Amino acid sequence: MYELGVVYRHITRADAHIADGLAKLGSATVHEAMGRVGLLKTYMRPIYPGAQVSGTAVTVLLQPGDNWMLHVVAEQIQPGDIVVAACTTDNTDGFFGDLLATSFMARGARGLIIDGGCRDVRELKSMGFPVWSRAISAKGTIKATLGSVNIPVVCAGINVNPGDVIVADDDGVVVVPAATAQATADAAEARESNEGEKRAKLASGVLGLDMYKFREPLEKLGLKYID
Amino acid sequence: MYELGVVYRHITRADAHIADGLAKLGSATVHEAMGRVGLLKTYMRPIYPGAQVSGTAVTVLLQPGDNWMLHVVAEQIQPGDIVVAACTTDNTDGFFGDLLATSFMARGARGLIIDGGCRDVRELKSMGFPVWSRAISAKGTIKATLGSVNIPVVCAGINVNPGDVIVADDDGVVVVPAATAQATADAAEARESNEGEKRAKLASGVLGLDMYKFREPLEKLGLKYID
Amino acid sequence: MYELGVVYRHITRADAHIADGLAKLGSATVHEAMGRVGLLKTYMRPIYPGAQVSGTAVTVLLQPGDNWMLHVVAEQIQPGDIVVAACTTDNTDGFFGDLLATSFMARGARGLIIDGGCRDVRELKSMGFPVWSRAISAKGTIKATLGSVNIPVVCAGINVNPGDVIVADDDGVVVVPAATAQATADAAEARESNEGEKRAKLASGVLGLDMYKFREPLEKLGLKYID
Amino acid sequence: MYELGVVYRHITRADAHIADGLAKLGSATVHEAMGRVGLLKTYMRPIYPGAQVSGTAVTVLLQPGDNWMLHVVAEQIQPGDIVVAACTTDNTDGFFGDLLATSFMARGARGLIIDGGCRDVRELKSMGFPVWSRAISAKGTIKATLGSVNIPVVCAGINVNPGDVIVADDDGVVVVPAATAQATADAAEARESNEGEKRAKLASGVLGLDMYKFREPLEKLGLKYID
Amino acid sequence: MYELGVVYRHITRADAHIADGLAKLGSATVHEAMGRVGLLKTYMRPIYPGAQVSGTAVTVLLQPGDNWMLHVVAEQIQPGDIVVAACTTDNTDGFFGDLLATSFMARGARGLIIDGGCRDVRELKSMGFPVWSRAISAKGTIKATLGSVNIPVVCAGINVNPGDVIVADDDGVVVVPAATAQATADAAEARESNEGEKRAKLASGVLGLDMYKFREPLEKLGLKYID
Amino acid sequence: MYELGVVYRHITRADAHIADGLAKLGSATVHEAMGRVGLLKTYMRPIYPGAQVSGTAVTVLLQPGDNWMLHVVAEQIQPGDIVVAACTTDNTDGFFGDLLATSFMARGARGLIIDGGCRDVRELKSMGFPVWSRAISAKGTIKATLGSVNIPVVCAGINVNPGDVIVADDDGVVVVPAATAQATADAAEARESNEGEKRAKLASGVLGLDMYKFREPLEKLGLKYID
Repeated sequence: MYELGVVYRHITRADAHIADGLAKLGSATVHEAMGRVGLLKTYMRPIYPGAQVSGTAVTVLLQPGDNWMLHVVAEQIQPGDIVVAACTTDNTDGFFGDLLATSFMARGARGLIIDGGCRDVRELKSMGFPVWSRAISAKGTIKATLGSVNIPVVCAGINVNPGDVIVADDDGVVVVPAATAQATADAAEARESNEGEKRAKLASGVLGLDMYKFREPLEKLGLKYID
Repeated sequence: MYELGVVYRHITRADAHIADGLAKLGSATVHEAMGRVGLLKTYMRPIYPGAQVSGTAVTVLLQPGDNWMLHVVAEQIQPGDIVVAACTTDNTDGFFGDLLATSFMARGARGLIIDGGCRDVRELKSMGFPVWSRAISAKGTIKATLGSVNIPVVCAGINVNPGDVIVADDDGVVVVPAATAQATADAAEARESNEGEKRAKLASGVLGLDMYKFREPLEKLGLKYID
Repeated sequence: MYELGVVYRHITRADAHIADGLAKLGSATVHEAMGRVGLLKTYMRPIYPGAQVSGTAVTVLLQPGDNWMLHVVAEQIQPGDIVVAACTTDNTDGFFGDLLATSFMARGARGLIIDGGCRDVRELKSMGFPVWSRAISAKGTIKATLGSVNIPVVCAGINVNPGDVIVADDDGVVVVPAATAQATADAAEARESNEGEKRAKLASGVLGLDMYKFREPLEKLGLKYID
Repeated sequence: MYELGVVYRHITRADAHIADGLAKLGSATVHEAMGRVGLLKTYMRPIYPGAQVSGTAVTVLLQPGDNWMLHVVAEQIQPGDIVVAACTTDNTDGFFGDLLATSFMARGARGLIIDGGCRDVRELKSMGFPVWSRAISAKGTIKATLGSVNIPVVCAGINVNPGDVIVADDDGVVVVPAATAQATADAAEARESNEGEKRAKLASGVLGLDMYKFREPLEKLGLKYID
Repeated sequence: MYELGVVYRHITRADAHIADGLAKLGSATVHEAMGRVGLLKTYMRPIYPGAQVSGTAVTVLLQPGDNWMLHVVAEQIQPGDIVVAACTTDNTDGFFGDLLATSFMARGARGLIIDGGCRDVRELKSMGFPVWSRAISAKGTIKATLGSVNIPVVCAGINVNPGDVIVADDDGVVVVPAATAQATADAAEARESNEGEKRAKLASGVLGLDMYKFREPLEKLGLKYID
Repeated sequence: MYELGVVYRHITRADAHIADGLAKLGSATVHEAMGRVGLLKTYMRPIYPGAQVSGTAVTVLLQPGDNWMLHVVAEQIQPGDIVVAACTTDNTDGFFGDLLATSFMARGARGLIIDGGCRDVRELKSMGFPVWSRAISAKGTIKATLGSVNIPVVCAGINVNPGDVIVADDDGVVVVPAATAQATADAAEARESNEGEKRAKLASGVLGLDMYKFREPLEKLGLKYID
């Protein structure tokens, strides 16, 4: 399935303005706006809490226990990118640490999504380079086999194409296809725009049952209250 | 097993004073005081560290991928309650987020225990609304099917009856039946009362072997020291 | 396999100076220096982030649900030791809490590595006693059966002999045999010594591809760039 | 939650005729007939394929690594019973083997459902005594601590009351409360009765789309066919 | 990512002759022939041992707990097809049983690959309709929401396009893109063709070390024999 | 910890007569006879049911995704041996298939215990070469890196020394140190010798409660019968 040993230098990135704007909406709102698809499996967790980023995907396919292609992908990073790393098999080795992070940051990367392990967690937190990974592991890797850069990959159960938009925060990682990024942003902002009003109502004690007019449909379905 | 589509409006809560007092004792001490039963499975983890609460359970049974009943249970919350949400099947979707938390807080809830997923983790932490869940997931849910409110549920392997006392902290979640809450509180306080003295002795270098008089029973069982 | 019911009082610890010095190098660098062996399985996680310790191993073999031998091992602790606890079967009960930690600290222990559960997480964090464990659980344990102290154990997949050096931080736990501790320290320091220079180069935008001269071997393996 | 150290000698069993009749309907049909509740978690698997049984539950609560109460429950077995064993914590030890099975069979038991481990698999298969368990393990257990017999238990996530009906086969294990056993049997037979006709139609090439009249509701929901 | 609510009626299937021929080569040989890519995650297991099939993929995307689209995909099956079912989230419910299998067989399907649960295992075995699934579960599903048919899906970590070739046996499930099916078949047959000779040599006692001439490269890497 | 790149040609095997005799006693009885230690983790499962073997261990340490050392270990096999393969990290690739099995059988091996994946399951079953593995996977491996042969290894959580006795059947895999093989055999036979009598008694309806005289100790611990 995967084309091995190739690096695509030219990819079409989603509009930077749209990609940048999705971070503040967060993965949950963006995921809703997309019709509840595109969320990476929930085993992908941030290595430290609090980061919230969005950006355009450059992709890399790794071989298990081998991080050579992370050096290859570094060259393809442009400011505003987020690296998305898939692996040809389940592997939790520590592919990525503070030296690579230094390089990625120098190229303008905003973070890394890796379906594998990560190490140097304390240093990465102190550098402020966020990583979402399937594991944390001190185990190092070798540099011996070829993968590919900027091919479509399956990362944690979801297809990611180079140039797609990535939104990642404490709730998880969402992939927005470049083609629907604008529509998704619009839908997400629409959702967000009336959240303040809803929040104020709920905070004042109004029930969602009333605010969303749920009582009638619930009754129709047969919900019974027993005193 | 489960009665579906019913909301019990009147439940008998454990005495508020007892329920309130268990928080400071912590889940580990309370669990010991109960004879080491009543602990939810250890996959139930706090979404942020440091919270320590106790309160009376209002229960809700959810259907997978559907959070409608969380709006129904909100109306049944009284100040001092902790919502305990079970699900008819294993599901990690993000049933609960900041809007529902706003509503729950407005009703006086002290936290949520959910055998499912949670989202808006950053906002919940900033609001100070603690949640213990089996997963964190940006995946939203629908509002289409009926569960029940305030029926007995099995949550993370443990039976919870409406009105039971819940004690939750970084060590996990313990359920104390309303009927034994007073006895449990007494036993837990008794355990706690002489912990200070024990701690001081151990800190001074006295060994548990001597303080608890373990040397003789260990020798009887055949423990051998080899120089 | 395991000798049960014995406590070895005299063990040969790795040189204290070497053992102490490995903490600052970190588990990832030490693991690399050993040829990428000796890392405990990645399910071993710190109960709170940020701790970084090294020291000499005193070992203890536990029976499931029984923490009696942790009191026995306490007496064998010397300043600079790290307790390594294995269990005869997979078990996540909360074997260890703040009272035992008080005792361990009084004896000079720097931490605990336990292939089992831990509790009193909040107190342990506040005391500054780091634990790496496979689970967090409020579930207490009994004192009924014999294990052993200072025998060789398999902890989270790795052999640990009494006196070996343990290095533990946010990235995991590494075991360094006493016999190779000096060589490992030398190799780790050598790795570390030129990291600063590498980091500066990468931060300035030099690519790992060039710094490590990867372009030629990658080309030889057939890596193709497509415009 | 659990009452420890008690054996209830007199329980009210579901009607034997109903209990016996559910085996042939199978766990999937019975589960449907109950409204899709009552299925034990899917980690409960038969130790050998092909068995299909139903009967009335006698329950037993075990302590981890201790099978003493299985000898106690043996005395409470009546012909037509199925033993349901829960455990106070997750444990995979081999609680049950061929000697206990010999005893259970002599008492008239039809099988064992155990949220723990089982051993002597080859002998059990040859004896024709079916077991559904969470694990297979040669690890033996001790006889040291009390549990209880014929109290309500939570087994693999589901409440089981003594006297409930158990239906178990290759698809899993379903619990039918004694009170609803007749209604469930009726509903299950109704489902089953027209399956033969459906099967014949489908085998002849009629599509479910037509047989169940799904085309119209699917179209209403917006399903589009693209040539 | 996924287009919901669409059914593609016309897909381009890999050549039937090639698709048919891969079964006898088996998943392991085909996987090798493809350069060790295309294997579904190993949690996909046959519901009974011994089946070995190949065929062309018709794909279906399911919603969790909802098997409606399996009725929709039935109409798109042609003789020689294997249905590949993905799900929008991790779900182990029993989507598929003997009635659907009857319909699929009537349409000419050779098997089902489903990243979800399966039930009626005993009947399916007796019918000879093989299924590879992530779980076995008696839990039934509803018919309420739309997925899609014959769109590209990610099934157990691997992209599957309608018309690709599927090879499945006791060792797992491999996906061969239609475009490379011929080349893969050729490579697989080449591997297979000299296996007989190799097997005879090995059976006669010739070592792989000699037959494959491994001694020299092993020595060059530094392998040492110690007497 | 592991010495890499070495093959120990001369190992001291446990007495063949003792090693051979343990098979018929089975892993459960042998495990009991050893004091309930030495059982590999329960994720190690036979690839087909019914095999029951014992023999002397030749050990091999593998690198993930690389089965080269299995060819090296083949040369060290003597009739009556069982190969025990550990791996430097968790890996489920299919290291072993029918060609290697042909070679192993030609050398006189009785089976393979591998903390990794296995493939060609159908062929292995038909050849009658039993394997206990952590996974079944069609994924092939490469031949590129050195491990070791006949060094002590940790396999599925248990230390195995070359020459130890392995007992494996449907219940799991037990390791008996060569030094205690005779004593273990004696203890296991003693256990076994009176099993027939016990079985007859239990089959006749005598309860374990009476046969083992459990009533008094249970009563002393406080067990209460309630009518």
